[in-house]
Amino acid sequence: MLNPLALPASPLPLIDLRSDTVTRPTPAMLAAMQAAAVGDDVYDEDPTVRELETSLAARFGMEAGLFCPSGTMTNQLAIMAHCAPVSEVICEATAHVYLWEVGGIMHHARASVALLPGDRGRLTASQVAGAVRPANNVHYPTTRLVCLENTHNRGGGSCYAWSDLEEIAAFTKKQDLALHLDGARIFNALVATGQRSEDYGQLFDSISVCLSKGLGAPVGSVLLGSREFINGCKRLRKLFGGGWRQAGYLAAAGLYALENNVARLADDHRAAAQLAEALRPLPYVAEILEPETNLVIFRLDESRLTVANFLARLEAQGIKASGFGGSWVRFVTHLDVSAEMLARVIAALPGLAA
Amino acid sequence: MLNPLALPASPLPLIDLRSDTVTRPTPAMLAAMQAAAVGDDVYDEDPTVRELETSLAARFGMEAGLFCPSGTMTNQLAIMAHCAPVSEVICEATAHVYLWEVGGIMHHARASVALLPGDRGRLTASQVAGAVRPANNVHYPTTRLVCLENTHNRGGGSCYAWSDLEEIAAFTKKQDLALHLDGARIFNALVATGQRSEDYGQLFDSISVCLSKGLGAPVGSVLLGSREFINGCKRLRKLFGGGWRQAGYLAAAGLYALENNVARLADDHRAAAQLAEALRPLPYVAEILEPETNLVIFRLDESRLTVANFLARLEAQGIKASGFGGSWVRFVTHLDVSAEMLARVIAALPGLAA
Amino acid sequence: MLNPLALPASPLPLIDLRSDTVTRPTPAMLAAMQAAAVGDDVYDEDPTVRELETSLAARFGMEAGLFCPSGTMTNQLAIMAHCAPVSEVICEATAHVYLWEVGGIMHHARASVALLPGDRGRLTASQVAGAVRPANNVHYPTTRLVCLENTHNRGGGSCYAWSDLEEIAAFTKKQDLALHLDGARIFNALVATGQRSEDYGQLFDSISVCLSKGLGAPVGSVLLGSREFINGCKRLRKLFGGGWRQAGYLAAAGLYALENNVARLADDHRAAAQLAEALRPLPYVAEILEPETNLVIFRLDESRLTVANFLARLEAQGIKASGFGGSWVRFVTHLDVSAEMLARVIAALPGLAA
Amino acid sequence: MLNPLALPASPLPLIDLRSDTVTRPTPAMLAAMQAAAVGDDVYDEDPTVRELETSLAARFGMEAGLFCPSGTMTNQLAIMAHCAPVSEVICEATAHVYLWEVGGIMHHARASVALLPGDRGRLTASQVAGAVRPANNVHYPTTRLVCLENTHNRGGGSCYAWSDLEEIAAFTKKQDLALHLDGARIFNALVATGQRSEDYGQLFDSISVCLSKGLGAPVGSVLLGSREFINGCKRLRKLFGGGWRQAGYLAAAGLYALENNVARLADDHRAAAQLAEALRPLPYVAEILEPETNLVIFRLDESRLTVANFLARLEAQGIKASGFGGSWVRFVTHLDVSAEMLARVIAALPGLAA
Repeated sequence: MLNPLALPASPLPLIDLRSDTVTRPTPAMLAAMQAAAVGDDVYDEDPTVRELETSLAARFGMEAGLFCPSGTMTNQLAIMAHCAPVSEVICEATAHVYLWEVGGIMHHARASVALLPGDRGRLTASQVAGAVRPANNVHYPTTRLVCLENTHNRGGGSCYAWSDLEEIAAFTKKQDLALHLDGARIFNALVATGQRSEDYGQLFDSISVCLSKGLGAPVGSVLLGSREFINGCKRLRKLFGGGWRQAGYLAAAGLYALENNVARLADDHRAAAQLAEALRPLPYVAEILEPETNLVIFRLDESRLTVANFLARLEAQGIKASGFGGSWVRFVTHLDVSAEMLARVIAALPGLAA
Repeated sequence: MLNPLALPASPLPLIDLRSDTVTRPTPAMLAAMQAAAVGDDVYDEDPTVRELETSLAARFGMEAGLFCPSGTMTNQLAIMAHCAPVSEVICEATAHVYLWEVGGIMHHARASVALLPGDRGRLTASQVAGAVRPANNVHYPTTRLVCLENTHNRGGGSCYAWSDLEEIAAFTKKQDLALHLDGARIFNALVATGQRSEDYGQLFDSISVCLSKGLGAPVGSVLLGSREFINGCKRLRKLFGGGWRQAGYLAAAGLYALENNVARLADDHRAAAQLAEALRPLPYVAEILEPETNLVIFRLDESRLTVANFLARLEAQGIKASGFGGSWVRFVTHLDVSAEMLARVIAALPGLAA
Repeated sequence: MLNPLALPASPLPLIDLRSDTVTRPTPAMLAAMQAAAVGDDVYDEDPTVRELETSLAARFGMEAGLFCPSGTMTNQLAIMAHCAPVSEVICEATAHVYLWEVGGIMHHARASVALLPGDRGRLTASQVAGAVRPANNVHYPTTRLVCLENTHNRGGGSCYAWSDLEEIAAFTKKQDLALHLDGARIFNALVATGQRSEDYGQLFDSISVCLSKGLGAPVGSVLLGSREFINGCKRLRKLFGGGWRQAGYLAAAGLYALENNVARLADDHRAAAQLAEALRPLPYVAEILEPETNLVIFRLDESRLTVANFLARLEAQGIKASGFGGSWVRFVTHLDVSAEMLARVIAALPGLAA
Repeated sequence: MLNPLALPASPLPLIDLRSDTVTRPTPAMLAAMQAAAVGDDVYDEDPTVRELETSLAARFGMEAGLFCPSGTMTNQLAIMAHCAPVSEVICEATAHVYLWEVGGIMHHARASVALLPGDRGRLTASQVAGAVRPANNVHYPTTRLVCLENTHNRGGGSCYAWSDLEEIAAFTKKQDLALHLDGARIFNALVATGQRSEDYGQLFDSISVCLSKGLGAPVGSVLLGSREFINGCKRLRKLFGGGWRQAGYLAAAGLYALENNVARLADDHRAAAQLAEALRPLPYVAEILEPETNLVIFRLDESRLTVANFLARLEAQGIKASGFGGSWVRFVTHLDVSAEMLARVIAALPGLAA
């Protein structure tokens, strides 16, 4: 059996809405992996890794790419490379790079953070401008980097308007600040907004693109930037222990995903909208961050149904979801959530408060 | 074509003696990869990763394992986990953890290093004892960790005698120091000496085992230690960006390698001995570190043949090797060096000085 | 001339309201300095330093003290000592330790910060409780330390109620978190609230006390804690370059200040209240943080008078104050602001908008 | 009594040969301290600190200076400022910056160290050249800084020849490496060799000069460099907690020392030579590093007299000295060792083995 479920047996296939990271390769992706030409990537000799890096860089209008084991690594390499000692990074208060990367900004770059409250995770140029520290005051670190996240995870898969990105980029260029994009779900944003990936390279100094979320590859993210920047990051990747050998098998899955799994993200977005539609009338749902892409983040009225009970009762029906802090829950739609599964979830929701 | 050569075409297959990291999976290993059951390893749900970690830990008499993208990561996670701030690490002056991990000890653990000159990389208990800093002197960091490497790369694949390991471990236990083994090529040492892997868990607090060197897996190393230690390292792995998702494909290759490619390391050792035999009478060879395993490190008499010329002339015959600093050269034998290839190398050597 | 003004000549003595750090020793303090017995403090042999450390520790109900060149050093040593690698520190969003110590928490301890919005800088136990990260989630650093600041600088010299401190301390003890007090102006808090210094040692694991602010000593802060904690910090002080030699001259000034300049802080508090009284009716003053101690922080209505003009016109009359970000200004009263000077400031304020 | 001995009473004044850091100010130096004009040095307003920094910079042919609490701070600030992340520092294997600064290079700059064996601590240009890492190899950190120490403490107060310094500086300039001098005892070197301080600024990018060793000031070192470099270091000094307030009292002692205590270092050198002369014939002395300045480092034949007994018997006669690792002992001559004291030491030595 090619791809058996790793989790306890259940009469119906398990539905995993916890994250789009849980997807498993299809037989076609697996075949592409098996057919990959490989070499030692530490010696820069893996042709499939090279192809992935080169083609993805071109797709985003950038010079070079670096294939890494995770988006945390691509983000943290970029942040460290952009910061000199005694720097400060401006980001949204619930940004993944600050909140869910184990304090990596502080640990790896030893940089301070200026945390701004975003509109569902989105910052504005004027917010960013207000957070830059005065340069000639020895009490402050030096502001060097602004990090944006698009789509924004904690913001419920929210997308930036292009004009807002342009304004922020115009400001950072003028102030000689670096601008990094955590694009863990950038393809969701591109599909939802119709923005063009090629334009992103004009605005950002570096972009992290994840292949193992909605795109469905098993492992890996790619960091994009200038040739010089990426060369510097290659040394940092080695330092972090991300210098892997015949990584071409994983790169092949990424190439397959870029070829085959981008346009279909629209299906995930539709599925998320349907879930929100189904949640909206339920008495135990207090608030929904209206989905713009594949994330549905909603708050329970815990006087009617606690998060613990909600999750346990879902799981009893073979459906997994994530508590998201406090009274919040997150559903994520993805490649491995079929129309039938979606219908099962929607059917299950109304009865959970009983 | 399943596994084409990534390098420029040549009338005969290229022979790559640069490192045992360059090996590529056989069709059987690839089939094992394709058949792997996988899950999201960040959620601890990849069954093949679990099996690899559990079985390798048992094999070395330890409680738990952690599968990571590289030996640099497993070494550096362990070093960081063993050290508190303001620590010092004792290691050999040419240890891989000090010399070829991008200054990771200093960077990640911010620890100082006490560098000792080894006998082909091997330390003794009395050397270690002499390097421990006095505890109650504010001028010094606190000695917390001793790192050994077996086999020792820069020492020419040299192996520790068991009694020496026991003495060092007795000392570190008495002094409450941690003891880590960089076992990048520990299976070469086990095969060459007949030592038992199960006994290693009695001596060491942590062991890094590499699967992508002589064992021939494409990617990955496993860190072994106590359950509590490994749990702590799992958080550090996430911090380093080593939290990968469906890593089971790579773990399956590792399991295959452990099943199939250990005993055959003896072939690599014989091949290395033959290379040394062939080098010994050559006038341009000044000195050979007699091979104990699969590494042949030798020094050229550059008045007769420079390293640059030696490597270029080898390469012209489709043979790659590594300059190893100064007048030194390294040959590494491995899975992808067949008997025919070995014969070609041996035939080529005498003519290189011409 | 014993203590000439270092700043440009002016018909009347300059009035410096920028900070209480600008005070200069009186002749009596200078005499105490000159008479000090000294020794090499790196060898623990300076008797005056010892006396300062021991007596101040006793005064706060703690075991031991460490005399350092600045409050930034005492705070940062403590934070680093309390944190293991991959920690998070909970503090108020405008805490001095986060905002004005050059990103030291991130740099020295490489710790993440959970930033909470305080009531004029004051946190509550329930806020602290809500900020502790879940322990068994590899995405988060480990919460290890809570830092409070009393009086709180950016909060306008606000003081904690004792019951709030007790509640927070009860929580941190229960959760096994460390609790540090940035007591840069702790004597102002003690004088204003009537709290007893001896009780503080029951609540806090470490306290930083500054001698060179309102107390008027030229240089130095003392870190207080358990004997074991302070011994560890002594090594860190050396690491930071704070191991000084015959520091007894400065310690003597601190001892003099503790003997002579504590009770008189009430004068500074009265002076601050008078300044607030004078500011309140002025049309260009939009908002005042009502002074509880010696800081008067107020916001200008910049449509009537800009901060730049306000400061420039004050300076033209020989009065210095600090812009405090945005439309805010800070006045600090201290030892070197006499009643005559205060009257001059109060007389000058109404005319500044003209 | 102005300057009582801090140590237990003894029939004769205690003679402290442990270090030249133990000196205490003379009444004239104390008077200069008391008369100092001071201000808040964090605001750059202490005129005496300014004078010290400016005049010492001029004396060494450099643009600017920064007064700090210790030589460890001046060294570590400079090292951190010269290094970017993932750097390596070349220094002698027993350099103070590596050995006795609590692992500061590794901790503060997170830099690796390439440790070279010196001739009594002195490196040569060719040694330095051999230690530079190849630039385009991701396994290595980037070599960025060479640190020299003159005189060299562990080398027994040894002095560099000017031509050796010139050769090293020529190499580092050509390779675009920074060159730092740990000049803890640079005035001893200047007095002993007749080299001119003004020339040093031509060779070095930064120099740390200590005022509290042979010069006899109570506290402080000055870091010298370009204006831009020193401005950057001022922020780092704040980060390290070295931003002190009315530091002019200590700066005044430094200015006094520079005026009055430099030429007399020749007396200390003569005293050291006399001590070596007295030690040479003693049967229990196995080896002496012939003194070039004020340090006498010698090895005992412990079969005749152990270090522990040697030190204890000296102390019984009111003489303190330092064990210096293994069988080594260090005597340091300085301002507070009078001719009478020297005679007492010389008279005591022969009887110690009895």
